[in-house]
Amino acid sequence: MINKAFTQIQLDPPFLLFVGDVKDDASAKTGFGIAQWRRSACAGQMRLPGCGVDLRLPELDISGAVAAGTKTAIVGVAPRGGMIPGHWLETLAGLARAGIDLAAGLHVRLANLPGLAAAAAAGGSVLIDCRVPPQGIPIATGRKRSGRRVLTVGTDCAVGKKYTALGLHMELANRGVAATFRATGQTGIMIAGRGIPIDAVVSDFVAGAAEVLSPDNDPAHWDVIEGQGALNHPSYAGVSLGLLHGSQPDALVLCHDAARTSIFGLEGFELSPIGKIIERNLDQARITNPAARCVGISVNTSSLPPDARHAWLQGLSRGIGLPCADPLIDGVAPIVDRLLASE
Amino acid sequence: MINKAFTQIQLDPPFLLFVGDVKDDASAKTGFGIAQWRRSACAGQMRLPGCGVDLRLPELDISGAVAAGTKTAIVGVAPRGGMIPGHWLETLAGLARAGIDLAAGLHVRLANLPGLAAAAAAGGSVLIDCRVPPQGIPIATGRKRSGRRVLTVGTDCAVGKKYTALGLHMELANRGVAATFRATGQTGIMIAGRGIPIDAVVSDFVAGAAEVLSPDNDPAHWDVIEGQGALNHPSYAGVSLGLLHGSQPDALVLCHDAARTSIFGLEGFELSPIGKIIERNLDQARITNPAARCVGISVNTSSLPPDARHAWLQGLSRGIGLPCADPLIDGVAPIVDRLLASE
Repeated sequence: MINKAFTQIQLDPPFLLFVGDVKDDASAKTGFGIAQWRRSACAGQMRLPGCGVDLRLPELDISGAVAAGTKTAIVGVAPRGGMIPGHWLETLAGLARAGIDLAAGLHVRLANLPGLAAAAAAGGSVLIDCRVPPQGIPIATGRKRSGRRVLTVGTDCAVGKKYTALGLHMELANRGVAATFRATGQTGIMIAGRGIPIDAVVSDFVAGAAEVLSPDNDPAHWDVIEGQGALNHPSYAGVSLGLLHGSQPDALVLCHDAARTSIFGLEGFELSPIGKIIERNLDQARITNPAARCVGISVNTSSLPPDARHAWLQGLSRGIGLPCADPLIDGVAPIVDRLLASE
Repeated sequence: MINKAFTQIQLDPPFLLFVGDVKDDASAKTGFGIAQWRRSACAGQMRLPGCGVDLRLPELDISGAVAAGTKTAIVGVAPRGGMIPGHWLETLAGLARAGIDLAAGLHVRLANLPGLAAAAAAGGSVLIDCRVPPQGIPIATGRKRSGRRVLTVGTDCAVGKKYTALGLHMELANRGVAATFRATGQTGIMIAGRGIPIDAVVSDFVAGAAEVLSPDNDPAHWDVIEGQGALNHPSYAGVSLGLLHGSQPDALVLCHDAARTSIFGLEGFELSPIGKIIERNLDQARITNPAARCVGISVNTSSLPPDARHAWLQGLSRGIGLPCADPLIDGVAPIVDRLLASE
C-alpha cells in the first residue's frame, strides 16, 4: 500500500464508483454516500452483470473511465465479511492497468488480492487502503492552531456523527462560509477524498493524528471534523478522547439516536443523561481549548412516531438549552445558526 | 518477532541482565529496576569490558548463564537513541545461539539487528521486543470480570505510576494478599516478565488489551495495574482512558509529583486541582465499574524541603480526604490500609 500524501490518505478525483454485482442498496451504502455528497467529483459508476443497485451516474467501462479522465476507482460496496468476490478482480485489475488508482476500505489490503499489485505496477497506478493509516503521524503537541473547528461527538457509536458533520459542512458552504470536512473513518475518507482512519492509528498517536488532520488555517475558516465512538463507550472511548483533544474544537455538536437508552451491542451500559454527556465532553475539550462550547444536538428521530418527533426535540431543547434537530428531516440550520452566532 | 503467549508478551525466568558497557547508572535504569523488584528471578548480570555499572548480581558469561539455567537475557539498558552499539551484537548473538531468549525494548526490532535472527534460529531461542504488542487483541466487551483491580492513574506522565503499582503489589504480597502486578509499559513488562505495551496498541483495541491483561481471577485476588499517561494529558489521554475503561478498576491510586503544576514538556497546560482530576477519573472509571473509588494519592515529594514534606502531604490529605504518601519515603501502607478497609 502506498499513500500519496505524507500524513493523510489522498484519493484524487474524478472518481469512478465501482459497485460490482451487489444486489441491494444497503451493500452499496458507501457508493450512495459518495454519489450523494460528492456528486460533482464522480465521473460515473461501474456495475458488473447482475448488479441490483443504481447510483444514477453515467455508466462507464474501463475505456470510458479513462476517456472521462477518471483518477480513482473507489470500491463503493461493503461485501459480506469485507472480502472482494474473486470474479471482480479481473475488472479491478483492468482499471489499475489502465492507470486508474484503486481505493477500498476492506479488511484485506488491495495489494494482497491476486493480480492487483502487478496490475498497479504495470499501469503506474496506486492501491489505496482507506483503513490503513498513513506513516509519519507525530505525537500531539497541544499547540493551538489557527482557524476554527467543530467536532461531532456522540452518545454512542452509529448515531449520525459522519452524516451530521457532512450536513454541517454543506450548510456552512451554502452560506458562503469557508469550511472543510475532515474525515476520520473509511467511508468519510472516500467521500472527502482524504483523511485519516483514526481508530486504526496506534493509540499513542491518536491525538497527533487529529492535529495533523486539521492543520492551521485562515482565522475564519471552519474545519468540520467527523467524530468517532463516544467518551462513554466501554470499547472505543480512548479513540474519541484522543480525537477530541487533538481536534481542539471550538464547538461540539452532540449526535444522538432518540431510541438509544444504552450502548448498542453491549450488555448493561445505560447512557448517562444527555446533559451529563455534554458536560463530560466539554470538560475534556477544554483541556486543549478552554473556549470549547456545545452548539447543538443532532438527533436521529426515525424511531419516533411522526407526530411525536417535534415535541421530543422541543423537550430536549428545553431541557438542555441548545438547538436540537434531526439532520435528515430538519437539516442542521438551527445548529449552524448557533455555531456562527456565538463566536 | 515472535510472542510466545497469545495476547501477552512473555519473558521466562530466570533472567540474565545484560548491561553492555554503559558507563552510568541512569542508562541502566531498567536493569536496576528488574534487579530491585525481581531479584529472585535474576540468575545474574552480564557486563562487557569497560562497563561502569554494577547490579550486584552474580557475574555470568555465556556458558555460566547456560549452566545457571537462564531462560531469558534482558537488555537492561536504554542506549542513547534507542540503538544497540554494534560491538554488543556478537555477545547477544552468542546468547541466542546458546538457546537463551533475548528480550529488549528498543525502537528497532531485535530481528532487524545484524545476526540476531540467524543466531536465534540456530539456537532455537526467541527474540522478544517488549515495545511490540502481541497479536490477537480483541475489541473490549465491557463484560465485568471476577477478582479485584487497582489501577494507578496520574496527574501527568512520569509521576510514579509504575513505581507506585510495584509498591502496592509488594505491600499486598507482604500482607499475604493474593495479588499480581500487571505491566503496561516496556520496563514494567521486563520487571513482571509479562504484559502488554498499551501505548503501542492500535487505538480501537486499547480497552480490549486492558481486558486481556487482567483476566477473570479469584474473588479476593487483586490485580495491580500499571497506569499510563493521564486523562488530562493533551498527547496521551486516549491511551489512559482506554486503559481505565478496560481495567474496570475497583480502586484508583492517583500519582502526582509535588513540583508539577503544569503538564511536563508542553507549553501552557496547567494541571486542574487534584480533587477535580480525581473526580474526572472516577467519572470515567464508573462507566465500566460503578463501584470505583479512589483510595489514596502517591506523591513524589523529592522537590520539597525535607521539613516541609510531611506538612505538604498532610495538607493535601486534609483537602481531599484520602491517605497521601511518598512511596519512596513513607511506603504505600496507608494507601493499602484504605484499599483493603473500604472493600
